[in-house]
Amino acid sequence: MSVTRVHNFSISLDGFGTGEGLSLDAPFGHAGERLHEWMFATRFWGEMVGQPGGGHGVDNAFAQQHGPGIGAEIMGAGKYGYPGWHKDPEWQGWWGPNPPFHTPTFVLTHHTREPIDMAGGTTFYFLDTSPAEALKAAREAAGELDIRIGGGVTVVRDFLAARLIDHMHVVVVPILLGRGVRLWDGLEGIEEDYQIEATASPSGVTHLTFTRSVR
Amino acid sequence: MSVTRVHNFSISLDGFGTGEGLSLDAPFGHAGERLHEWMFATRFWGEMVGQPGGGHGVDNAFAQQHGPGIGAEIMGAGKYGYPGWHKDPEWQGWWGPNPPFHTPTFVLTHHTREPIDMAGGTTFYFLDTSPAEALKAAREAAGELDIRIGGGVTVVRDFLAARLIDHMHVVVVPILLGRGVRLWDGLEGIEEDYQIEATASPSGVTHLTFTRSVR
Repeated sequence: MSVTRVHNFSISLDGFGTGEGLSLDAPFGHAGERLHEWMFATRFWGEMVGQPGGGHGVDNAFAQQHGPGIGAEIMGAGKYGYPGWHKDPEWQGWWGPNPPFHTPTFVLTHHTREPIDMAGGTTFYFLDTSPAEALKAAREAAGELDIRIGGGVTVVRDFLAARLIDHMHVVVVPILLGRGVRLWDGLEGIEEDYQIEATASPSGVTHLTFTRSVR
Repeated sequence: MSVTRVHNFSISLDGFGTGEGLSLDAPFGHAGERLHEWMFATRFWGEMVGQPGGGHGVDNAFAQQHGPGIGAEIMGAGKYGYPGWHKDPEWQGWWGPNPPFHTPTFVLTHHTREPIDMAGGTTFYFLDTSPAEALKAAREAAGELDIRIGGGVTVVRDFLAARLIDHMHVVVVPILLGRGVRLWDGLEGIEEDYQIEATASPSGVTHLTFTRSVR
């Protein structure tokens, strides 16, 4: 049975999934790359960017679950591009000609455009619709495989609020951003739907996994 | 050297140290006792309330550090009593005749009153002053021993903002309260002063320790 999954979703100790002041030059605003340094140090990341090396520890064990079994991704406009990307007809996302998705990838945006075929199996589709409708489209594209809810923060939060996430991997990074976009706002009580495990990593981050306990 | 310490300070995954709607009947508001169930299950708690039993695991190992080496506590008005306690001349705190502090205990409040001697070594002193001044008074009372910053949320946050906390033990409970009083507001960047460790407990909570790295 196809499930919806969130992977490698990093937040600060104070719950921010991105900082303030997002721009083309600062995709995570004042947070910089601090939320993702744990991931850059993994073998998973090294392989993705073509650099040998990287840790094989618990951070890698979690991180490398990002790809296998996924048949489609859903992401928000804020993950696809910088504020204002929709005014640039040439914009094709942050990831270069071969994005690390390798599946149909549905971008939720009020500024739709024609699908874009990228190398490596990624095709970007642009939808102006609800989480539930986007999930329907992604399920059709993914067949038996799972759907990754790719973020950013608002999209993960919207899917959680709509009770559409089956498995979620959140990584709590021990920094205090103070400002930005919060993951947890408006989600009182959702822990009742999940079994939650915490795994502390020697790197300093804590991996939280949410597994839906009632279907 | 006497240091300031915070112990057993529980917050929800979304960072609330207490809920909404605090009252005499609901000291933590809609949070109820959910933030502290991990502690009630420890041997530390059992001994404090005179009930045998309780776990000897990692939760207890952390919890029992609450008392040893402490020579004074500083707490806020909201830990000492329910909203409006200052209108009750008979109010002597939540803890009965023998409170679990056993030291001079300084209550920060705009509604001061005469000191109250309780059994077991606790004396409540009431101060209407700043964190730094309160700490000075507590240090005089504590001698060589450490000062515990006892909470509630606002007091811990104020002492953190004033850079007056040397060691902090925060317990993240995997629930989403959605509303209440946040610990982390306005504390951007304070992680730079600390070495932070995370320890996941089989009980589901995560123990975070902050140890000041620069004096």
